[in-house]
Amino acid sequence: MNEFIDLEDVQFDIDREGRCGFPEVVYGEGKTKETILKIFQTMLKYNIDGLATRVSDDKGQFLEQELMRDKIHFSYNKVAKTFRIHKQDGKRSSVYGKVAVISAGTSDLPVAEEAKETVLWTGAEAVFIQDVGVAGPHRLHAKLPLLREADAIVVVAGMEGALPSVVGGFVKVPVIAVPTSVGYGASFGGLAALLGMLNSCASNVTVVNIDAGFKAGYVAGLIAGKGRTKN
Amino acid sequence: MNEFIDLEDVQFDIDREGRCGFPEVVYGEGKTKETILKIFQTMLKYNIDGLATRVSDDKGQFLEQELMRDKIHFSYNKVAKTFRIHKQDGKRSSVYGKVAVISAGTSDLPVAEEAKETVLWTGAEAVFIQDVGVAGPHRLHAKLPLLREADAIVVVAGMEGALPSVVGGFVKVPVIAVPTSVGYGASFGGLAALLGMLNSCASNVTVVNIDAGFKAGYVAGLIAGKGRTKN
Amino acid sequence: MNEFIDLEDVQFDIDREGRCGFPEVVYGEGKTKETILKIFQTMLKYNIDGLATRVSDDKGQFLEQELMRDKIHFSYNKVAKTFRIHKQDGKRSSVYGKVAVISAGTSDLPVAEEAKETVLWTGAEAVFIQDVGVAGPHRLHAKLPLLREADAIVVVAGMEGALPSVVGGFVKVPVIAVPTSVGYGASFGGLAALLGMLNSCASNVTVVNIDAGFKAGYVAGLIAGKGRTKN
Amino acid sequence: MNEFIDLEDVQFDIDREGRCGFPEVVYGEGKTKETILKIFQTMLKYNIDGLATRVSDDKGQFLEQELMRDKIHFSYNKVAKTFRIHKQDGKRSSVYGKVAVISAGTSDLPVAEEAKETVLWTGAEAVFIQDVGVAGPHRLHAKLPLLREADAIVVVAGMEGALPSVVGGFVKVPVIAVPTSVGYGASFGGLAALLGMLNSCASNVTVVNIDAGFKAGYVAGLIAGKGRTKN
Amino acid sequence: MNEFIDLEDVQFDIDREGRCGFPEVVYGEGKTKETILKIFQTMLKYNIDGLATRVSDDKGQFLEQELMRDKIHFSYNKVAKTFRIHKQDGKRSSVYGKVAVISAGTSDLPVAEEAKETVLWTGAEAVFIQDVGVAGPHRLHAKLPLLREADAIVVVAGMEGALPSVVGGFVKVPVIAVPTSVGYGASFGGLAALLGMLNSCASNVTVVNIDAGFKAGYVAGLIAGKGRTKN
Amino acid sequence: MNEFIDLEDVQFDIDREGRCGFPEVVYGEGKTKETILKIFQTMLKYNIDGLATRVSDDKGQFLEQELMRDKIHFSYNKVAKTFRIHKQDGKRSSVYGKVAVISAGTSDLPVAEEAKETVLWTGAEAVFIQDVGVAGPHRLHAKLPLLREADAIVVVAGMEGALPSVVGGFVKVPVIAVPTSVGYGASFGGLAALLGMLNSCASNVTVVNIDAGFKAGYVAGLIAGKGRTKN
Amino acid sequence: MNEFIDLEDVQFDIDREGRCGFPEVVYGEGKTKETILKIFQTMLKYNIDGLATRVSDDKGQFLEQELMRDKIHFSYNKVAKTFRIHKQDGKRSSVYGKVAVISAGTSDLPVAEEAKETVLWTGAEAVFIQDVGVAGPHRLHAKLPLLREADAIVVVAGMEGALPSVVGGFVKVPVIAVPTSVGYGASFGGLAALLGMLNSCASNVTVVNIDAGFKAGYVAGLIAGKGRTKN
Amino acid sequence: MNEFIDLEDVQFDIDREGRCGFPEVVYGEGKTKETILKIFQTMLKYNIDGLATRVSDDKGQFLEQELMRDKIHFSYNKVAKTFRIHKQDGKRSSVYGKVAVISAGTSDLPVAEEAKETVLWTGAEAVFIQDVGVAGPHRLHAKLPLLREADAIVVVAGMEGALPSVVGGFVKVPVIAVPTSVGYGASFGGLAALLGMLNSCASNVTVVNIDAGFKAGYVAGLIAGKGRTKN
Repeated sequence: MNEFIDLEDVQFDIDREGRCGFPEVVYGEGKTKETILKIFQTMLKYNIDGLATRVSDDKGQFLEQELMRDKIHFSYNKVAKTFRIHKQDGKRSSVYGKVAVISAGTSDLPVAEEAKETVLWTGAEAVFIQDVGVAGPHRLHAKLPLLREADAIVVVAGMEGALPSVVGGFVKVPVIAVPTSVGYGASFGGLAALLGMLNSCASNVTVVNIDAGFKAGYVAGLIAGKGRTKN
Repeated sequence: MNEFIDLEDVQFDIDREGRCGFPEVVYGEGKTKETILKIFQTMLKYNIDGLATRVSDDKGQFLEQELMRDKIHFSYNKVAKTFRIHKQDGKRSSVYGKVAVISAGTSDLPVAEEAKETVLWTGAEAVFIQDVGVAGPHRLHAKLPLLREADAIVVVAGMEGALPSVVGGFVKVPVIAVPTSVGYGASFGGLAALLGMLNSCASNVTVVNIDAGFKAGYVAGLIAGKGRTKN
Repeated sequence: MNEFIDLEDVQFDIDREGRCGFPEVVYGEGKTKETILKIFQTMLKYNIDGLATRVSDDKGQFLEQELMRDKIHFSYNKVAKTFRIHKQDGKRSSVYGKVAVISAGTSDLPVAEEAKETVLWTGAEAVFIQDVGVAGPHRLHAKLPLLREADAIVVVAGMEGALPSVVGGFVKVPVIAVPTSVGYGASFGGLAALLGMLNSCASNVTVVNIDAGFKAGYVAGLIAGKGRTKN
Repeated sequence: MNEFIDLEDVQFDIDREGRCGFPEVVYGEGKTKETILKIFQTMLKYNIDGLATRVSDDKGQFLEQELMRDKIHFSYNKVAKTFRIHKQDGKRSSVYGKVAVISAGTSDLPVAEEAKETVLWTGAEAVFIQDVGVAGPHRLHAKLPLLREADAIVVVAGMEGALPSVVGGFVKVPVIAVPTSVGYGASFGGLAALLGMLNSCASNVTVVNIDAGFKAGYVAGLIAGKGRTKN
Repeated sequence: MNEFIDLEDVQFDIDREGRCGFPEVVYGEGKTKETILKIFQTMLKYNIDGLATRVSDDKGQFLEQELMRDKIHFSYNKVAKTFRIHKQDGKRSSVYGKVAVISAGTSDLPVAEEAKETVLWTGAEAVFIQDVGVAGPHRLHAKLPLLREADAIVVVAGMEGALPSVVGGFVKVPVIAVPTSVGYGASFGGLAALLGMLNSCASNVTVVNIDAGFKAGYVAGLIAGKGRTKN
Repeated sequence: MNEFIDLEDVQFDIDREGRCGFPEVVYGEGKTKETILKIFQTMLKYNIDGLATRVSDDKGQFLEQELMRDKIHFSYNKVAKTFRIHKQDGKRSSVYGKVAVISAGTSDLPVAEEAKETVLWTGAEAVFIQDVGVAGPHRLHAKLPLLREADAIVVVAGMEGALPSVVGGFVKVPVIAVPTSVGYGASFGGLAALLGMLNSCASNVTVVNIDAGFKAGYVAGLIAGKGRTKN
Repeated sequence: MNEFIDLEDVQFDIDREGRCGFPEVVYGEGKTKETILKIFQTMLKYNIDGLATRVSDDKGQFLEQELMRDKIHFSYNKVAKTFRIHKQDGKRSSVYGKVAVISAGTSDLPVAEEAKETVLWTGAEAVFIQDVGVAGPHRLHAKLPLLREADAIVVVAGMEGALPSVVGGFVKVPVIAVPTSVGYGASFGGLAALLGMLNSCASNVTVVNIDAGFKAGYVAGLIAGKGRTKN
Repeated sequence: MNEFIDLEDVQFDIDREGRCGFPEVVYGEGKTKETILKIFQTMLKYNIDGLATRVSDDKGQFLEQELMRDKIHFSYNKVAKTFRIHKQDGKRSSVYGKVAVISAGTSDLPVAEEAKETVLWTGAEAVFIQDVGVAGPHRLHAKLPLLREADAIVVVAGMEGALPSVVGGFVKVPVIAVPTSVGYGASFGGLAALLGMLNSCASNVTVVNIDAGFKAGYVAGLIAGKGRTKN
């Protein structure tokens, strides 16, 4: 069995979905736009719904033009810097669970959007709740019914990173906390939020890397779609 | 509705199971043995299956004696430093999913045991795999069939913390990584393992605090028992 | 004017109250029990109500015996490790404002007690609220009326240190946050709580050193007794 | 009661003044100029005196033009990067206490100006003292009479951050220390000053985040205006 | 004996090959293009095969033009930013051992190329293996026969830096691990990878500085060419 | 093929020598004396020359007694805390290369001894040079002839860790630097020495973990015995 | 006595020479070119030989033009970014001691030049020795006679910062070590060099801030000119 | 010339005084009491006035007994943990300059005493000033005349480490700052004081390692005795 497609500079892991439940995701940061395009074309040939993250504006516009020319369906989220391609028309016949994505402040938006796009790519429904930081407590309270419908919750917060603990104390599902690099001074590029989340007093909180919206969305989608992706 | 039981030095959250899916867990470190006993007695009155973590040897022996006198069923794991009480006979009528707990080396055992005990307390089945560190790769390979049956996997590792990434590359379920303080020199009390796990190249890995076996077991049990604890 | 009393190993600042509003406080850690006694005797001679912090058990018992022999009024708080002497009978004719001291968990108690004792020493009334951590949100809500009567609030919390932000969002007075060294792993001896509090999204939160219950109580007392201590 | 105004990308907390004593402040960094304008217009409708911090030059000029066109009174401080709007003519009928704002060196000026503008916005009088660093001790001594009239003192310093301790030893009121990122090498972006201030030997010093002039001014104004904003 | 050539701004160590086995290498970062050229010309005069690292694009193009004009043989690797000059035609009459250079991801390429160029310069053969990160385990397995032919192995990896441990568990030769600054958030500029590699559970792994491809290639070449460079 | 011996608490890797060139080494820290004995007995059965590191005094005395009773040859180094068993009489028929082990100060001795014992275990000759720190330069110069005979050099140093660079500038073979936790204050448990060695200006220096004498000795032995252990 | 000249944005300390031995030095970084000029003009009026450090290129050119127009003598060192004005013709009638300034590599030059200019400004003679890093030991040995004539030695080094210890072991005078931010990866902006120097095994080494050439030159000049500046 | 005395475990540098101005100092921490005695006996044979630092109580008592038996003159400072031997009767015929040693608080005393003993050993006079921390400013002012007579000043301070800057602003001689590990919480074992001192705004301040009283005393003695120890 030939498990890799050799694309010269990249060795695309064609077998990832079989082994891990989802196809390999393209991390756009170290790759040229041509390379990303080449990977997308390979994905389409193998009938894979692709996701690329950290796609800068110029790479995104290039992909947009190339894929439109070939009449391929795609979703390009300029805030999230994500690019998704759809083997058919991008309409999903079925949805696998529901994930809530919450952010503490408006500056956390790009990371929250990356999480949301990844959730959608995993096949789950995404509920998006913005600007419910700890300083305004009733904003969160108003959203509790929405949160309680979710199978997993992604909480995105910078600065002190207190929101996951507060959310965690209200719900029965796993909370995946994403610290962001939003803040200044003693936030030390997200370190304060990261440490705060790791020390959360809520038992249902696990943590991912600073600004790792993708990884939080991925795991939340995995939890929401449980059974679909069972080993 | 009276949601708290006032035990003088502790205000026991009687409503936690309704809100969060599981009862409040007793963190034993800052509490006297008498206080832990008092909380356990309250739990029994309210028909709650209790779990206490970080119970030192002398506290454990005291609880053991007191509870045996009252003919109460309990499980006391001296390696994990956990103490569980069972409302009836501790035999479970049903099991909610399966969690694998893997540790890299023998020194990681106490943390892995804490995770395992917590998994059992959540009502899930626990598969326990020891001493499968990265330096001896075939040990892990031999266990892959076992891992692939789990609904969630807890991976416990100190030093460099590479095991979660390697495990994550083989499975379709969430991996919860627990860095341990095992190591010396530039392990900096578990910091090396923690950073390694946060930077894992495997998409399905989330992380908890250093030595936080309890939290990893809790979230893994939550995922495995999905539906049971749905909001 | 002779502003110092030379006690050999210590030069006691007899003028501190005139300059700073309160007498010099004795930091017990680096001093022998005999030295502390000598300073207390000097204070009594100059009609000063003394406060000593970080007084270990054996030093405390020595002072207790010596002062009882001389029929001097004192308050010795063994949890706080504070020792106060009263020029007369320790009954206060008047009270200068009200300070609330809140702690997140039972392990934070010694630091909270140190803050409370210092508040009392400044002449303010102290409201003491324990075990209202973020994971059990209604506990805090039940205490809000009490908090709203205070002139300043001291919030003591370890681990993630999220409580000051949550409290800060409900009140109109300054919140002085005290991170504690309570926690394990990535709490790094209180660093996580400290960074979290410095990055608090609540505008009315200032921070003191890790475990510095004394300093928080001092400043809260200063605020509550405003006018009394005006320059 | 409708407590939020939904401005699409921002949910403005109309109730903040009732709950916290002062209206919500606009953190300009993550927001577009159009968003800030929209919030200001909402504030004017609700008769709120607005403050925005971290307003960059281009955003400031835009706001200046728009508000002048509408003949609205405002104060735009280009050094502080703050923008204040005044419901009427910006003239204050009454003043609530007095705050001194001191800075150690000329490079600390922007942070000190942010503190000063915030003090004015809280309704207090601001005394501004510049360039009185520790290396030239008589400069500070000359200002002591001025300092002794204040109800609270904001001390802004970078590098080693020693000024708050020195000031704290001379006064009877709370000192709020603001470390700045001014310095090079082992100042590590303000960390040296932050640690120095947290370890201050003066009992009346509390600390805010690096460069957080706003927060220091806010709390100082709260203390100076005590009674006005009592819960 | 005159051991130095005085080139004004640089004192070129003409004796390095006699003392250390290889000539002095030119670290290009702090030097002007003219200085590098001058050193190269000196090397040619003394019949030394030169290597310069960290040669930026503009410096490289300048050297290319100047050396072509003088019909000197050279190898300029634009990805590695290395520039080598060959005393004759750059063809090697003999090869001293074999070194494998492996990288985990495509972003690690520049560092891996620097290692490879240095290996070639030491006189060893270089086997180059790309994109065999831990998440896709069979990619590495397919390359094991190639690895087992090497006398020393350079492993280049960013993020969590787990690859050296995995490689180390399969081979009988020294592994030189190079952490790279590739990653984001809690990779802290390569710190996570560095700590991971220092804590490697594989006994045959030593570590060099972050991004120090040159040093890894140098030592690997030294090991591979053992006997050639014996003291 | 059965590659592991199941010793209950440990799974002994019987195949390590075939795969990695040397047998598995016993890390004594997390293991009971009975477990270490059991592993040694297994090794003897399989004709393996065993090495255990970090064997505390009481464990060492126990092993000494047990092995003497069974008339087994062993070497127990109480300074190094290492314990080696010899399948026959411990006399080596042949030697594989030569390694110099140098230490900067007398406090570095235990780490240097661990390195030396490991070198001997790999089959190489060990030259041991003590107390040649940088502050007394002629001490090192007197030893240069000895150093120049070695195939690899282990340099052990705490505090500032400058010795590897100085040694590296005089020799043609790989230098493996071992930072030690010797020092106080800003040595931060060996961090200063570790960073110094990673930034060494000598091209032939690679680094291992703080206090990792074993690993340095292992790699030095691997280099010295090149050919013997070739893949 | 009027000790300050009020220059609006700066309060120039006219009395510094009387109190501290040397006039106040102008730190150019936070000041406009107009402000620096104004201070220089004040200095000239008070017959002070001025020094400004961290003067950027554009500020330097402006000062150059303005001062040339007024026929004032000055020395502008573009590498050091220092600007000195001379009350008369800049020729010194007498010299106060001798200071050696040594740098490890060419990239350390700007910091070394700043130290040298400051030494000259203090009235001492400066001996300048470049590029004598630890990797080429005979380069330093050749300079020992020169070093032994100095009254104090400034050693400037980045990366591992080993040079001060080596120099310190050869001389009888104080060595002032200046770590530089030269390096990459685990040099962490000069931290590695700073820690190395603080842990120096040579007894005569004290340390200043990273890149603080000025301070090292100042103290070296103070030592060399002892007696001249005695209190 | 035989420059070393081989004492088995230590190689005593008999030539240090000729090369560095003072004899080698014995760092007591890693050495047995017998070794220290042996070195002292060697020193006496070579007519050297010896100094040993970090001599624990039991080692000190042993040395005391042994040296008294042999009727050797010595000074044993139990607070400083230093032990000095005198070739004759310990009375100095001449004194080389004057050094002031100042400490901020009583807990800094052991480090200050170590500095003082070292100053005396270098042949200088020592002025000792205790407990003059920044919080009580007039205490320092009263001592200024004393300080102004010194040739060099050692300032010992923990916590925030502000005292050296304040002292530095009043004097014309070098200030050597010694951070101590005195403090708690965010003092991080002396890091706060160390960073504060490195960032001192006073130009005449250089810094030594945390708790390094010896090194500060050594350099201060070197400066005070200038001319005596000239190269």
